[in-house]
Amino acid sequence: MADAQTFETETRARPLWGGPPPGWRARIYLIAFEAETPAGRLFDKVVIAAILLSVCVVFADSIPRLHARWARQFLFAEWGFTALFTAEYALRIVCLRQPWRYAKSFYGIIDLLAVVPTYLALLFPAIHVLIDVRVLRLLRIFRVFKLTAYIAEYQQLAIALAASRRKIAVFLASVVLIVVVLGSLMYVIEGPTHGFTSIPVSIYWAITTMTTVGYGDIIPQTPVGRFVTSLMMLLGWGTLAVPTGIVTSEIALHRGRGPESLDRATRGAIGLSPAPPCTACGEAEHLPRARHCHACGAHLPRPAEAEPEPSR
Amino acid sequence: MADAQTFETETRARPLWGGPPPGWRARIYLIAFEAETPAGRLFDKVVIAAILLSVCVVFADSIPRLHARWARQFLFAEWGFTALFTAEYALRIVCLRQPWRYAKSFYGIIDLLAVVPTYLALLFPAIHVLIDVRVLRLLRIFRVFKLTAYIAEYQQLAIALAASRRKIAVFLASVVLIVVVLGSLMYVIEGPTHGFTSIPVSIYWAITTMTTVGYGDIIPQTPVGRFVTSLMMLLGWGTLAVPTGIVTSEIALHRGRGPESLDRATRGAIGLSPAPPCTACGEAEHLPRARHCHACGAHLPRPAEAEPEPSR
Amino acid sequence: MADAQTFETETRARPLWGGPPPGWRARIYLIAFEAETPAGRLFDKVVIAAILLSVCVVFADSIPRLHARWARQFLFAEWGFTALFTAEYALRIVCLRQPWRYAKSFYGIIDLLAVVPTYLALLFPAIHVLIDVRVLRLLRIFRVFKLTAYIAEYQQLAIALAASRRKIAVFLASVVLIVVVLGSLMYVIEGPTHGFTSIPVSIYWAITTMTTVGYGDIIPQTPVGRFVTSLMMLLGWGTLAVPTGIVTSEIALHRGRGPESLDRATRGAIGLSPAPPCTACGEAEHLPRARHCHACGAHLPRPAEAEPEPSR
Amino acid sequence: MADAQTFETETRARPLWGGPPPGWRARIYLIAFEAETPAGRLFDKVVIAAILLSVCVVFADSIPRLHARWARQFLFAEWGFTALFTAEYALRIVCLRQPWRYAKSFYGIIDLLAVVPTYLALLFPAIHVLIDVRVLRLLRIFRVFKLTAYIAEYQQLAIALAASRRKIAVFLASVVLIVVVLGSLMYVIEGPTHGFTSIPVSIYWAITTMTTVGYGDIIPQTPVGRFVTSLMMLLGWGTLAVPTGIVTSEIALHRGRGPESLDRATRGAIGLSPAPPCTACGEAEHLPRARHCHACGAHLPRPAEAEPEPSR
Repeated sequence: MADAQTFETETRARPLWGGPPPGWRARIYLIAFEAETPAGRLFDKVVIAAILLSVCVVFADSIPRLHARWARQFLFAEWGFTALFTAEYALRIVCLRQPWRYAKSFYGIIDLLAVVPTYLALLFPAIHVLIDVRVLRLLRIFRVFKLTAYIAEYQQLAIALAASRRKIAVFLASVVLIVVVLGSLMYVIEGPTHGFTSIPVSIYWAITTMTTVGYGDIIPQTPVGRFVTSLMMLLGWGTLAVPTGIVTSEIALHRGRGPESLDRATRGAIGLSPAPPCTACGEAEHLPRARHCHACGAHLPRPAEAEPEPSR
Repeated sequence: MADAQTFETETRARPLWGGPPPGWRARIYLIAFEAETPAGRLFDKVVIAAILLSVCVVFADSIPRLHARWARQFLFAEWGFTALFTAEYALRIVCLRQPWRYAKSFYGIIDLLAVVPTYLALLFPAIHVLIDVRVLRLLRIFRVFKLTAYIAEYQQLAIALAASRRKIAVFLASVVLIVVVLGSLMYVIEGPTHGFTSIPVSIYWAITTMTTVGYGDIIPQTPVGRFVTSLMMLLGWGTLAVPTGIVTSEIALHRGRGPESLDRATRGAIGLSPAPPCTACGEAEHLPRARHCHACGAHLPRPAEAEPEPSR
Repeated sequence: MADAQTFETETRARPLWGGPPPGWRARIYLIAFEAETPAGRLFDKVVIAAILLSVCVVFADSIPRLHARWARQFLFAEWGFTALFTAEYALRIVCLRQPWRYAKSFYGIIDLLAVVPTYLALLFPAIHVLIDVRVLRLLRIFRVFKLTAYIAEYQQLAIALAASRRKIAVFLASVVLIVVVLGSLMYVIEGPTHGFTSIPVSIYWAITTMTTVGYGDIIPQTPVGRFVTSLMMLLGWGTLAVPTGIVTSEIALHRGRGPESLDRATRGAIGLSPAPPCTACGEAEHLPRARHCHACGAHLPRPAEAEPEPSR
Repeated sequence: MADAQTFETETRARPLWGGPPPGWRARIYLIAFEAETPAGRLFDKVVIAAILLSVCVVFADSIPRLHARWARQFLFAEWGFTALFTAEYALRIVCLRQPWRYAKSFYGIIDLLAVVPTYLALLFPAIHVLIDVRVLRLLRIFRVFKLTAYIAEYQQLAIALAASRRKIAVFLASVVLIVVVLGSLMYVIEGPTHGFTSIPVSIYWAITTMTTVGYGDIIPQTPVGRFVTSLMMLLGWGTLAVPTGIVTSEIALHRGRGPESLDRATRGAIGLSPAPPCTACGEAEHLPRARHCHACGAHLPRPAEAEPEPSR
């Protein structure tokens, strides 16, 4: 039990909801939240299958030809899935020590969003369109990435992205600035008669151009506009090199290393719980596997001891 | 002979079909499957020329103007190529010890697909459309990459891709998730009146947008839709950096190294036969050039000895 | 005071306008140009908010539906912002020792462009279109990048781009050459009847194709033209690898290093003041943290001593 | 003179035409082919200006509105430029020891193509369209890259591309194979009624899709076609990572190193003359600056001595 908690603390975010209470609820907890036991893995597989099937039903229901013919069946299936997800949500709530914390967490909200739209559509048929929020159920599959054999790959990508996030922010801010200035310029050059009906529309066009998407719904028609567009395309093409370079050098740097190569803030940003600070000298940076403080040599508290459940 | 087998074992996948039987069939084998002899190289060149020519005929036959004028000649040429490929297939079957294994292998099926559609079209003219399967003949040219002077480049690329395949799988799963969620969102925002006729169509549109293809057949027209689209384009643009970073860092890591830098599973994934495990202690990971087990020091079996032909 | 100047000299371009005169004007200087004090930070935040709001007003005013309804309100807001920016410009001028240098600097001109168009539109209503120059106000936000916590990221990106600028120039020159030659070729192949109305238009089309934007407003229609286009697309696709490779290897090289890894010309190009030359032997290349000349061992002047304010 | 030759041998391809004969023709040679003297640099600048101007005239002449008004002036200018380039070509021929070698070299043919079309158009007005070959004059500017301050950057890019050329060939062959197979598949799925009129057209479409150009002139319309297209776009998007990775790792590897880090074949491919082999032991690989053979210590022949002019 303690070992499972240690593993969990080191590889995933420690659950905010404080883990399971003892007794039969602990057994439900192991099934619903952990994938260490056969029952837990089966539970995960059933939930994933239900998610995928329910999303397929949402897809099929949106196709006019299929809706015309199978609308009743789709409705029955939808209520079946909603019942299943409601039961799952109830199970998760019931087995936790602090269900309210779970309900407010990211996955708690996603789990709730999986069932609420169907009930709402029953009460207020007018907001039928909200029902497509059900596609967000797919986000629940992400939960599984953290539990599978792909955790190392998931972590490496997350680490590289987290480590580059500040550079990418600076880069994106510059791109937005360029796009706004050049979009406004093209609004002046081409004007509403050529499809650049307002500055926001021109900025939308500038983004389609600089990202090389190029729908072709709005097109420069004056010689000057085409010249500016040519420069923008070359600029956008060259600029693409920058985020690639940032992410590549981060991936190259962090490959083969675990999360301990990250500083505290970055580890927090990708959902890795920071190790507890040394109780003797307060030193905060330790390798997760460290048993002694590297600064003063004192015995380090084990994560489960450092954050005792009841005190939360 | 033993040397040729050793070379073959180390640089390519050992043929599943157990190599040639002795006698005249061994000579045919050397010509049809190996490129070590002048006759073998000539055989390869003739087959490649026939493949390219037959594909050109398929191309030309699909152009209405050429079909109207030369349909008869194209038909004659097609039967000529089919006869040639049938003879080649018979030769390959006849010279093998275990022809059935070859027939079930990847190249065996491709070789069969090169001739079957023409015969089928004779029996059932209705399935005329299947005849374009003949273009798959081109896949047979890939066989040659493994035999030529480009084998080192082929291997380096294959190694880099194979080593990144798990990270790319995680990345693609995330992209599919994002595309599905954003495509559904745009279906809600824009709706069928603006061309987003169903959720699958919206997802198709989301993929054309995030990969920066941007056909322009479906286009957002509401201000909110254009705003979401702008975010999607910037996101897709930035995301492109991730697979590039993954592959780049793998290529940089593996350049100049041979396949022995890979673990067992990766080597299998790119068609490199894993070295046989140590007969003394069972240790499976050895460098291909290793003569002694690194774990127990026992003499390692040579590949040709470890996998004797008759026992297959 | 001296410390602040040293910091400023090393991390940003030393202000060309020679810093503040003593007295109350120095206090205004600290608020208007520095972000070290709470008042300075508040000043920055107010100015940024005003910039963003005024740009939003320009955007909204360009949308016909909003303009029809709120034109008066937008005009009042515009005059309010113009008054605010005029006051800010006056403050900046008044607190400087050499206001003329500031007025001629990049940010001085941008600051002026933020207010002049509105006054001009009052005098000459005909040049109403010039009013969109106001969007350039956004460029003033760049000033903030140099002052914030993102300065390290900003510098690393700027260093990588500055270090690759010569290679990128060679690359762009080659791309322009290819685009011109291939665009002219397509003009000959397709001709005015297929939309390639002149060589400049064909070059514009070649750029949209090779950068993979692909609007689809001009499209090859002859078989030969489509074949050449296919080659161009593959070429453009492969070529994109080159700037990415350049920037990536520079980012990888310079990450973790400060500007001292750059040569003098590159540091100048990204706005880092070069260290003063040795007063004993004239050697110009020194690390910023150097205390002694590496060539003759003489004590190096500290930046603030080497460029005393009054002598400017 | 000998020094100039040595420099030339090391940084550029040794001229195939054997250098200048002695006397006044040597002086013309230095002006026309070298950029070491002020006269040579001026000659280069005049020629480049004439090239750019003449190309601008070709551009302007292709614009219908300008042609209608200035056709006569453009014709006069064209004959002026042709006379200038003819004189330049005559000068280059006259000052060489082996003019025929020059005439057959790459730049010799480009120089000839700069003047021939105009004369041809005089004789056979029907082939007027050939006159656009004059744009190829731009290629002559490439000659200058080898002489300027950008030679180091030009060489580094050329080295990285030359070193990756075999990997890129393997990659492009794979891409062509994929594009042909998927293009044929889409021809079967969508068929002529949806714009996929023949297999070559489908392949053209597949290339526009996988390179993410996406004109939108041909578009999948069946659900199956759109599904296959989605897979193709994701595949093309991911594939783009491969050439980037190849070029990036080569640039990273070769940065800061001179051409001596390349093997003999690669150096030949980018126009670097291989050093002559040692006359004592035959060892072929030497640094260009080497004076003694690294294998046997014998004095190395200097390039000019090893390839004496008269023996050519």
